[in-house]
Amino acid sequence: MEKQTKFVEEITSMDVDFAKWYTDIVKKADLIEYSSVRGCMIIRPYGYAIWENIQKNLDKRFKDTGHENVYMPMFIPESLLQKEKDHVEGFAPEVAWVTHGGSEPLAERMCVRPTSETLFCEHYSNIIHSYRDLPKLYNQWCSVVRWEKTTRPFLRSVEFLWQEGHTAHATKQDAIDETIKMLDVYADFCEQELAIPVLKGKKTDKEKFAGAVETYTIESMMHDGKALQAGTSHYFGDGFAKAFDIQYTDKNNQLQYVHQTSWGVSTRLIGAIIMMHGDDNGLVLPPNIAPIQLVVIPVAMNKPGVVEKATEISEKLKSVVSVKMDDSDKSPGWKFSEYEMKGVPLRLEIGPRDIENNQAVLVRRDTREKTIVSLDDLNEQVLNILSEIQSDMLSRAAKLRENNTYNARSFER
Amino acid sequence: MEKQTKFVEEITSMDVDFAKWYTDIVKKADLIEYSSVRGCMIIRPYGYAIWENIQKNLDKRFKDTGHENVYMPMFIPESLLQKEKDHVEGFAPEVAWVTHGGSEPLAERMCVRPTSETLFCEHYSNIIHSYRDLPKLYNQWCSVVRWEKTTRPFLRSVEFLWQEGHTAHATKQDAIDETIKMLDVYADFCEQELAIPVLKGKKTDKEKFAGAVETYTIESMMHDGKALQAGTSHYFGDGFAKAFDIQYTDKNNQLQYVHQTSWGVSTRLIGAIIMMHGDDNGLVLPPNIAPIQLVVIPVAMNKPGVVEKATEISEKLKSVVSVKMDDSDKSPGWKFSEYEMKGVPLRLEIGPRDIENNQAVLVRRDTREKTIVSLDDLNEQVLNILSEIQSDMLSRAAKLRENNTYNARSFER
Repeated sequence: MEKQTKFVEEITSMDVDFAKWYTDIVKKADLIEYSSVRGCMIIRPYGYAIWENIQKNLDKRFKDTGHENVYMPMFIPESLLQKEKDHVEGFAPEVAWVTHGGSEPLAERMCVRPTSETLFCEHYSNIIHSYRDLPKLYNQWCSVVRWEKTTRPFLRSVEFLWQEGHTAHATKQDAIDETIKMLDVYADFCEQELAIPVLKGKKTDKEKFAGAVETYTIESMMHDGKALQAGTSHYFGDGFAKAFDIQYTDKNNQLQYVHQTSWGVSTRLIGAIIMMHGDDNGLVLPPNIAPIQLVVIPVAMNKPGVVEKATEISEKLKSVVSVKMDDSDKSPGWKFSEYEMKGVPLRLEIGPRDIENNQAVLVRRDTREKTIVSLDDLNEQVLNILSEIQSDMLSRAAKLRENNTYNARSFER
Repeated sequence: MEKQTKFVEEITSMDVDFAKWYTDIVKKADLIEYSSVRGCMIIRPYGYAIWENIQKNLDKRFKDTGHENVYMPMFIPESLLQKEKDHVEGFAPEVAWVTHGGSEPLAERMCVRPTSETLFCEHYSNIIHSYRDLPKLYNQWCSVVRWEKTTRPFLRSVEFLWQEGHTAHATKQDAIDETIKMLDVYADFCEQELAIPVLKGKKTDKEKFAGAVETYTIESMMHDGKALQAGTSHYFGDGFAKAFDIQYTDKNNQLQYVHQTSWGVSTRLIGAIIMMHGDDNGLVLPPNIAPIQLVVIPVAMNKPGVVEKATEISEKLKSVVSVKMDDSDKSPGWKFSEYEMKGVPLRLEIGPRDIENNQAVLVRRDTREKTIVSLDDLNEQVLNILSEIQSDMLSRAAKLRENNTYNARSFER
C-alpha cells in the first residue's frame, strides 16, 4: 500500500520544469497521444470524456440562456473570408487551404474554418429580414484549424475542438448585453465546475479579435504564476453586418443593420485544469467534471468476500456518483498511483479488516487526507467529501492567485 | 381552425415529384439552408436538434456495449492514406486536398478525412502491444468530406456529420461478432427509435467498403418504393493490421495481427426519416426522436384565462414530454400548418369551451385523428398516444415494405 512512488519517478517535477511536467501529465494520464499529422493531437478516451463533461455542462447553460445549436460548413471560400477587412488580415496568414477536390483543381480555393463569423454572417443575411427574426442566438460545436508554428497539447494546436456562439441583435445595447452575459456564463462555469477562479477584463486593441469592436476575456492564474486566457466574448458592433449586408426592417419599417457578438471556449480548458490543479503525482480533477469521481480498489483480493463486497459497494455508489471498480490483477500500490495520475478525486479502499468493521477508507486526491467511514452511510459521506473537494479546490486556487498578486508601483517587484 | 392548406399548397406532392417533395420539406421544415460552399449544407436548429437526439440515443447504445469516444485529427497525410492499397484506390478520387498552410506550400499534401481507418490504424499500432490491450472499442463523432459531384441534403453531401466506430480484436471471430453486433445495434435503433424497419444483408464485392473483407448493411424501403442504405458495418480481417503493422503479443508470447472492424451511420438517417414517414403536409417525426413531441396551441387567445390555462398545461406536460407552447400572434390555422410541416407528433388545442369542460383536444400528426381528453389525466393520455404513434409508424412502414415486396421469378413483375 505504500508503493505510491511508481509513477512519481516518471514525471518531471513541476518546480523543475513546468512545461515538461505539463506534457508528461497529458501523456501519462492518457489524455492525448501525438499523431503523425503535424500539430494535431489524438484525444484519447479519458481526455475526451473530460471534454464530453465540459460540453454537456456548457451546452445546458447555453440552452438555458436561449441559444440553439446549428452546424455550418467546415470550408470557407476565399472570397467569403475576404469580405470583412480586419477579419481576413487576422486569419488569412494562419489557415489551411484546400486547392483540389479529387484530382481537379478548384476554381476558387477554400480554407478550413479557423472560426466561422463569415459563414454565420452569410447565413444571417439570408434568414434575417424583420425585427421579428431577432435576436438570433446560435451556437456551434465543431473543430477549427489554425496553422500554428509552435504547438502544445490542448493549449495551442493546429486543430482543436471548441464551441463558437454567434448572435445577431436589433440594437447595440442588446449585443453588448449578450457579450457580457456569455462572459459571465463562462466565468461562472470555470469557477463552479472547473474550480478555476477567473478575472474578467477587456483586451487591448492590439490583442482584440480580428474584426471586433471589443474583446472581453476571462483569464486565470496557473500554478506557475502565469496567466492563461480561458475564454473570450466579442462585441462586433455592426461592422460585419455592413460587410455582409445583414439588415432587418424595424417596427417603423426602416432598414437597420444588426449588431453582433461571438464567443468561444475550447479544449484549452482541459489545459487550464491541468495547470491549475495538477501536482507532482499527476492530474487532479474537480469532481464536477471528472469522468470517474470515485475509484474502488479492493485490497487483499484473494481473501474471500473482498471482491464481492467491493462490487456491492460500487453498485450502490453508482446511483449517486460516477464509479469505477478496479479488480484487475495489478497491485494496490500500482492502482493507487495510476488513479492519482489520472486525477480521480476520491479513492475507496476496502479490505478484509474493513469488511469486518463494516467500514471503508476514503482517500482524497487533492489533499491525500484519509477518512474511515461506515458502510451504512457511505453514499452520503462520499457526496459530502466530493462536494468539499470541489469547494476546497476553488479556495486553494483563489488563494494561489491572491498570494501571487501584487500592486505594481514600479518595474521591480 | 380549418385553414390547414396554407403550406400544403407550397410543397410539391410526393406522388407528382418525390425528389422535389423531399427538397421542399428539408427547406420548409427549417431543417437545412443551402450555403455558398459547394455541396455543403447548413444544418439549422430544428434539423440539428433531430441530430442531437439521434446522437444522444446512439451514443448511449455504444457506451452500453463497451465503446469509448475519441477524437482523431481531421487531416490525413497522403502517405498515410496510401498505406492500404484498396482503401486509397476507393477514396483518393473523392477527397479534398490541403496543399498550403498560411502562405507556405506543404511538404506533403493532406486530405480532409473521408473516413478515418488510416488514422485509427496508425494510432492502434502505437498503443496496442499485448493481448491485455484488446479489444479496443473506439468511436468518433465528427464530420467527414467526400468530393461528391451530385449532392442532396442529408443523403449525399460534400461534408456530412457521422459517427465512425473502429475496433481491434484478438481473433477473427471476435471481430466478426463485433461487426454483426453493431449492425444489430443500428437495426434496433432504426426500428425502435426512428420507426424504420430495415433489412440486414451483405454488400456485393463491388459495393464493399474499400479495404473490407465483408460489408454488412441495413437497408430500408422508402415511401417511393426505393431502397436506402441506412448504415454499414465492415469486417476488415487483418488486412489493415498487416498494412499498418498492428501486432500484439498473445498469451503464448507469440506476435499476432489484430482483426478489425469499422461501422458508421450519418446525418443521412434524417433523410431516411423524411422519406419514410413524411407526407404531403410535410415532415412526420417519430416521437422518440422529435425535438418537440407536443405543441400546445391556445385557441381564441384574446378570451380571458386561455393563455394562462395553456401555460399551466404546458408546464405540467414538461415533466413527461418535450413541449412547445406557441402563443405568438399568428392565427391558429397558420400554427396548425406550421407544426404539421415540422412533423411535431402531437398537437394540443385548448380554447374557452375546452376549459369550461375541463378538456383539451389532441390531434395526431400521423393520422390526424382527434381525441378529446380530460385535463385530469392529460399527462398519461399524452404518453399513451405518443407511444401509440411510435408503434403505429413502425407498423405502417413495415406494411409499406410488405405490400411492395414480390418474389421475382422473371424480369417482368
